[in-house]
Amino acid sequence: LAAAGRGRAEQLPLGVGDDACLLPAIGHPVLTTDTQREGVHFHSHWLQPEEIGQRAVEITFSDLAASYAQPAALLVNLALPPAMAQETAERIYRGIGRALERHDCPLAGGNTSRAQRLALDLFAVGRGHADLFPRRDAARPGDGLYASGPLGLARAGLLCLQARCTRFPVMVRRFKFPQARFDTAHRLAAAGVRCVMDISDGLAGDAAHLARASNVSIRLVVAPEDLEPEMVRCCRALGIDALETAIRGGEDYELLFACRPEVFEKLRRLLPGARQVGRVEPRGDRLLLDLPEGWRSFQHGAKTGRGDAKPAILRRPY
Amino acid sequence: LAAAGRGRAEQLPLGVGDDACLLPAIGHPVLTTDTQREGVHFHSHWLQPEEIGQRAVEITFSDLAASYAQPAALLVNLALPPAMAQETAERIYRGIGRALERHDCPLAGGNTSRAQRLALDLFAVGRGHADLFPRRDAARPGDGLYASGPLGLARAGLLCLQARCTRFPVMVRRFKFPQARFDTAHRLAAAGVRCVMDISDGLAGDAAHLARASNVSIRLVVAPEDLEPEMVRCCRALGIDALETAIRGGEDYELLFACRPEVFEKLRRLLPGARQVGRVEPRGDRLLLDLPEGWRSFQHGAKTGRGDAKPAILRRPY
Repeated sequence: LAAAGRGRAEQLPLGVGDDACLLPAIGHPVLTTDTQREGVHFHSHWLQPEEIGQRAVEITFSDLAASYAQPAALLVNLALPPAMAQETAERIYRGIGRALERHDCPLAGGNTSRAQRLALDLFAVGRGHADLFPRRDAARPGDGLYASGPLGLARAGLLCLQARCTRFPVMVRRFKFPQARFDTAHRLAAAGVRCVMDISDGLAGDAAHLARASNVSIRLVVAPEDLEPEMVRCCRALGIDALETAIRGGEDYELLFACRPEVFEKLRRLLPGARQVGRVEPRGDRLLLDLPEGWRSFQHGAKTGRGDAKPAILRRPY
Repeated sequence: LAAAGRGRAEQLPLGVGDDACLLPAIGHPVLTTDTQREGVHFHSHWLQPEEIGQRAVEITFSDLAASYAQPAALLVNLALPPAMAQETAERIYRGIGRALERHDCPLAGGNTSRAQRLALDLFAVGRGHADLFPRRDAARPGDGLYASGPLGLARAGLLCLQARCTRFPVMVRRFKFPQARFDTAHRLAAAGVRCVMDISDGLAGDAAHLARASNVSIRLVVAPEDLEPEMVRCCRALGIDALETAIRGGEDYELLFACRPEVFEKLRRLLPGARQVGRVEPRGDRLLLDLPEGWRSFQHGAKTGRGDAKPAILRRPY
């Protein structure tokens, strides 16, 4: 387990294993948390234990990337079923360690406890940008809406796993190994982009979140010719609609951002996978415009069906 | 729910409800996390929902107090059984809000998700002391070992709840409403005390943790005449041994600290409830000395029976 938690030697937290741990000073501390629960967010037969750990860290760090923050420390609480082998828990930690190593971030604490089903609660602290804290409420009419990469691939990969289809490993890989987009975040921060979030619930769901927060409407502009050919082939094999998968499918953990079109034009060559997915308009009756036929349910917001929600108190800033 | 998360206006985090939130600068960030799981750490029929919330926050903040840190932000992940009424979840948040108000700390984020049993995962960030980060590995032979208040009361209260005995409300209150001992922590920090932890597992268990970390042995010196008369009456009514309850019983969340006896003499009038519970000696064969008869099991450390453990990776600093 020596791999988990290796990081910059000068930044190792003090007191790991004590009641609490101490980090070096942070000028702009950014906090986020994520829960990955067996049976709600994933199923163990989809993922190897290492993949469960690695994926949970990337998903948590995706929120830091969307906030222009660099990982400074991670804490992990693991709920383990009594029947789970010690080795499985160690493999989960090994996956956590791999992701931490990739992001040069120390593991700063955590607990294990017994529970009926496997669950991971991750808490991350990041070093935020000195001048910019991007928000989902900063989209303005006239902005374009952009994604840092192709969408729907993780969803197609998940459906492959469920269907035990092994013909599209690239899609499966996108589901198993999301990568927090710090690369894109750096470029966006340097360009002063102020409206960013990560796409966890799917484009339609998250664009609706962004539209509601910014009090705008968003016209989605994903066309069939924008889709990845491999994803189109995969969706065809699975008998599902590729456009719907791209618009609705979640867990890609790409960044969604809004900025003036001329800003995006300048950024485009620095962000090879980025593409336009919508246009921001003044707030009308509906949050989302130009959805494919039969998608009325998205016009009043997003339901992910994952049983997750921000508690009411967190939905309205106090 | 307006009460939850009220705090110093100038310190409210930005972006609550976004992907992450931003705090003001922290010179000495201290991190800790705690899990409270129905069926492992508590039972719902012992506690009202508000009490579950309030207690979980105090337990988490107890680790900050033991680290000389002031609460700066709390994140809470709540796992809710599908059958739980929305009102019950709101009452848990109300209790969380009460504790946050008491400590002038904002709620900075969190999630809810579905699970078979109620669980709370709390993550706290504190503002640490500029010069001192107390550790459990700093006890030295010749130090006295002290507790900030009486021990075993919470355990007696818990046993009252289990036995449906209503004659000792003070004991029950000590179980239901632990209070993070920031008052004592301030005095200890001002006196330069360097070895502190909180007593969650019980004196014997936590003294063994401290002895192991400090590579010393500890001679416990709790005498029957040191016990609270009300606790002695309560234990008699319950048919249990009061001394054993004081030494073994957990969840008091008092502070355990080691320092030179002359330092404690100067502190004594500032810490009305504090008392000596042991003496630190050079490391011998056993971690704990002078345990009551029949307690050999503690000589090799502590098992709390709660199914909790620090993951191996956190036990040895890397």
